This record gives sequence, structure tokens and C-alpha cells, in this order.
Amino acid sequence: LSAFCAAAITGSLSIIFVLIWVLHYREGLAWDGGSAEFNWHPVLMVAGLIFLQGTAIIIFRLPWTWACNKQVMKWIHACLHLLAFTLTVISTVAVFDFHNTAKIPNMYSLHSWLGIAAVILYCLQIVVGVVLYLIPITPVSWRAAFMPVHVFFGTLLFVGIISVALMGITEKLIFALKSPKYSQSPPEALFVNVLGVLLVAFGAIVVYTVTR
Amino acid sequence: LSAFCAAAITGSLSIIFVLIWVLHYREGLAWDGGSAEFNWHPVLMVAGLIFLQGTAIIIFRLPWTWACNKQVMKWIHACLHLLAFTLTVISTVAVFDFHNTAKIPNMYSLHSWLGIAAVILYCLQIVVGVVLYLIPITPVSWRAAFMPVHVFFGTLLFVGIISVALMGITEKLIFALKSPKYSQSPPEALFVNVLGVLLVAFGAIVVYTVTR
Ligand code: HEM
Ligand code: HEM
Ligand code: HEM
Ligand code: HEM
Ligand SMILES: O=C1O[C@H]([C@@H](O)CO)C(O)=C1O
Repeated sequence: LSAFCAAAITGSLSIIFVLIWVLHYREGLAWDGGSAEFNWHPVLMVAGLIFLQGTAIIIFRLPWTWACNKQVMKWIHACLHLLAFTLTVISTVAVFDFHNTAKIPNMYSLHSWLGIAAVILYCLQIVVGVVLYLIPITPVSWRAAFMPVHVFFGTLLFVGIISVALMGITEKLIFALKSPKYSQSPPEALFVNVLGVLLVAFGAIVVYTVTR
Repeated sequence: LSAFCAAAITGSLSIIFVLIWVLHYREGLAWDGGSAEFNWHPVLMVAGLIFLQGTAIIIFRLPWTWACNKQVMKWIHACLHLLAFTLTVISTVAVFDFHNTAKIPNMYSLHSWLGIAAVILYCLQIVVGVVLYLIPITPVSWRAAFMPVHVFFGTLLFVGIISVALMGITEKLIFALKSPKYSQSPPEALFVNVLGVLLVAFGAIVVYTVTR
């Protein structure tokens, strides 16, 4: 149970940190093709693909949900993932739109390669999840047989996404901090490094909860 | 078994790719306080903390080792980790020495924070492993009780280290590629992105092998 409190705290703090980053240290949020539009990218990825996905993953382990109807729990799990995916799509549109306006090439970085792969696999995992576990006609034997794959692949995807976020943070700090530079450790650099540590902590707690 | 071939192939390819990177695209290897000394950092991290650690982790799952003496297998596992740790220490000295010579600050980046944390935890995992499983006086009940923690923490550490390496690759590509820049996708950028993809594939295969 204390793991859930820890997940709630590190998860909420991550969202607060990413908001303070873009609103206080950076250009704020807008949909204008500029840096303020880019800023939706980290905010929505942390809130959606990390926080909401993490929440969806550990929801079945919350003791008070064991009294709930299993069908209802499945819907909540699926809806959280769908919501996470929706935010992810907006977040991805924001960064492509920013790149196109600023005439920066798309898909050049390792971050963008692994990021887009993660988004596609996440979408696939949702489709397979809905087909197998939400549509009533799927045979129970299929559902059971596929469950270990669903859990393994879902957890791996979650871990991979945290790691994509850490690369994104690294890139943005190097690009955005020029004088003083990232290596001169201005307050923003330390603050956002702490955001990275929070994401790692959140990820570790979620994985611990699901694998125990 | 095909998982082992896949691990062997992606793992060996990773080492070949990192060598081609530093020898062909970069300044080569030397111990001169300059960029060629820095280059030992990625080479030894990929060879040691990723390849050797990954090998040590899956060694118990190789079918032909099941006929081997358990005590011998434990020694091999421990020695591989010790060798990995030795290379890690040299790799860390190389990057600090390079920074000090070039008057670049130490420990400013998220990569360095998570990297140094990983190295310290790795060292701790080795110490605890030796005390619990190599020293003959440790009670068997302790060994059994601690095994799930050892496996969970070891696997988490391995995954975290892959993710630290991806951040390191991202940093180095941004720092090293100036004209043409990383975003202009010169051959080196694509080549090293593929190295990143190989590391992710190796990591996924190792984790799959250990968790099935
Ligand atoms: C966690 C899930 C994330 C995913 C799946 C993801 C995905 C992507 C993708 C697909 C692109 C390519 C856009 C293009 O080429 O036009 C991109 C770009 C970028 N992202 Fe992320 N991102 C994530 C998180 C973050 C975070 C937390 C940051 C922190 C600021 C970030 C920073 C960046 C930056 C600076 C770029 C532009 C440079 C580049 O293309 O690599 N990302 N991201
Ligand atoms: C990308 C999206 C998804 C990811 C990453 C994901 C991940 C996971 C993970 C990690 C678990 C293990 C939870 C635990 O052991 O406590 C799980 C369980 C489950 N998921 Fe998903 N899932 C996704 C989408 C879906 C969808 C759309 C459905 C459709 C309803 C679904 C149905 C289930 C079911 C039925 C369980 C088993 C719960 C139980 O019996 O403990 N998943 N999922
Ligand atoms: C996988 C395990 C790795 C670990 C544990 C690790 C650890 C570290 C540490 C502790 C530092 C700080 C050195 C200092 O402050 O003087 C550092 C720096 C650096 N590492 Fe790594 N590293 C790893 C892999 C890599 C890889 C594969 C690359 C790819 C080139 C890389 C690139 C860099 C760069 C460019 C720096 C200097 C900038 C900075 O301090 O962030 N690292 N690394
Ligand atoms: C940082 C260093 C280490 C890491 C990351 C690590 C990681 C792991 C992992 C992931 C496993 C699970 C393997 C499997 O299930 O097939 C494992 C098993 C094991 N490790 Fe380690 N280990 C480390 C150091 C050590 C050391 C120094 C010892 C001392 C001998 C040790 C003893 C064992 C034993 C006895 C097993 C159980 C093998 C079995 O019965 O299947 N480990 N280790
Ligand atoms: O020393 C050992 O500890 C574990 C086991 O006793 C705990 O599960 C194991 O496999 C050994 O060889």
C-alpha cells in the first residue's frame, strides 16, 4: 500500500515539475507554432504516457479495487490507456508542428526513433487489448494464453517510455540552455534533472508493484 | 534458445558499432586527456556494463549450463559482474579525466546523475551478492529469502543502465556533430542511432530471457 502512496507522490510531483519547468523557466504553453507549442510535448507526455499509463498499469493492484466488478476495472484500465494515447497524439502533433514551423527536420534523433516506435507499439497494445479483453466474443482460453504476453510487453513498453522521456529531457536541456549552458548548472538544469530522477522513481515503483 | 542467438548477435553488433563509431567516425582511442580518452567511456560501458552484465544475467538460463556444477556457475556469474565493474571504473575515470583536462564541470547532467547512481548501486549489488551467495557461511534461508530481491533489483539496474547509455549517446551526438549538425542526419548520426536501437533490442531480449 505504501507503494501506491509513493507512486501517487512521485507521479504528481512529476506533473508539477514539468508544469513549473515550462511555465516558470520556459515560454509557457500556447498553440502558436513556437516554443510555447513545443512545451505541450513534455507536459502531455509526462501527464499521459507516463502518469496515466502508470496509473492504468497499477490499478488492478490497488486493494480496494478487488471488491469492484472485474468488468468495470477492465473498462477503467482501457479508458486510462485511451486517454493517455489521446494526450500522446496531441503531444506528438505539437512537436511535429513546432519543427515544421521552425524548419527543423523531423525524426532525426534516437529520441524520435524510439519515441515514435513506442507510440506505435502502444497503439497496437491498446488494439490487441480491446480485441482480446473487452470484446465479449473472444474465447477465454485465448485471453488467458495471451495474458503473460500482455503484461510483459506492457511493462516493457512503460519502461521504454520512461527512458525515451529521459532522452528528451536531456536534449531539451542542451538545446535550451545556452548562457549559462547546461554544464554550468543554472537552477533550471538542477530542477529538470530532479524531474528526471522523479520519473525514474515513479517508473521503478510502478514496475515493482506490477511484478511483485 | 533462439533468444540466446539474438542476444549474442545484438550484443556483439553493439560492441562492433561502438568501436566503429569511435575509431572510424571519431578520434580513436588513447589515454591523452582529450577526446580519444573520452572515447573509452562509451566503448567500455557498452562492452562492460551492458554486454558483460547482460551475459552474466542470462548465463543461468543457457540450457547447456544446467549440467554444470552450480557452484561453478555462481563463480562465472560473479566474475562476469566483477569484470564488468572493473571496465566501468576505468570508463568512469576516463570521462572524469577528460572533463578535468578540458575544464568541463563534472556531474552536471541527468545522464551523469543517473549514471553515477547506477554505478554505486551496481557495486552494492555485487557486494551483497558475494556476501549472500558466495560466502559459504550465509544461511540458506537468507539466500532463498533474498533471491527475488536480487533478481528484481538486478534486472531493474540492467534496464536503467541501458537507459543511461541512450541518454549518453544522445548527448554525445549533439555535442560532437556541429556541421553538419545532428538534426541534418549525417551518416554518423544514423549509424549511432542504430547503435541505440541495438542496445534496446539487446536489453529487451535479456529481460525477456530472465523473466520468462
Ligand atoms: C515520454 C514519451 C515521449 C515520446 C514518445 C516522445 C516522442 C517524440 C517524437 C516522436 C519526436 C519527433 C518529433 C519530430 O521529429 O518532429 C520528439 C521530439 C522531441 N522530444 Fe520527445 N517524446 C517524449 C517525451 C519527451 C520529453 C519528456 C521531452 C522533454 C522536454 C521531450 C523532448 C523532445 C525534443 C527536444 C524533441 C525535438 C528534438 C528531436 O526530434 O529529437 N520528449 N519526441
Ligand atoms: C497500451 C495499452 C496497455 C498497456 C501498456 C497495458 C498494460 C497492462 C499491464 C502491465 C497489466 C498487468 C497489471 C497487473 O498485473 O496488475 C495489464 C493487465 C490487464 N490488461 Fe492491460 N494494458 C493496455 C491496454 C489494455 C486494454 C485496452 C485492455 C482491454 C480491456 C487491457 C486489459 C487488461 C486486462 C484484462 C488485464 C488483467 C488484469 C488482471 O486480471 O489482473 N489492457 N495491462
Ligand atoms: C551505460 C552506462 C553509462 C554510465 C553509467 C555513464 C556514466 C557517466 C557519468 C557518471 C558521467 C559523468 C562524468 C563527469 O561528470 O565527469 C558521464 C558523462 C558522460 N557520458 Fe556517460 N555513462 C554511460 C554510458 C555512456 C554512453 C554509451 C555514452 C555515449 C557516448 C556516454 C556519454 C557521456 C557523455 C557525452 C558524458 C559527458 C557529459 C556529461 O557529463 O553528461 N555515456 N557518464
Ligand atoms: C551487480 C551485480 C549483479 C547483478 C546485476 C545480478 C543479477 C542477477 C539476476 C538478474 C539474476 C537472475 C538470473 C536468472 O533468473 O536466470 C541473478 C541470479 C543469481 N545471482 Fe546475481 N547479480 C549480480 C551479482 C551477483 C553476485 C556477485 C553473486 C554471487 C555469487 C550473485 C549470485 C546469484 C545467484 C546465486 C543467482 C541465482 C541463480 C539461479 O539459481 O538461477 N549475483 N543475478
Ligand atoms: O546460493 C544460492 O542461493 C539460491 C537459492 O538458495 C535461493 O533461492 C541459489 O539458487 C543458490 O545457488
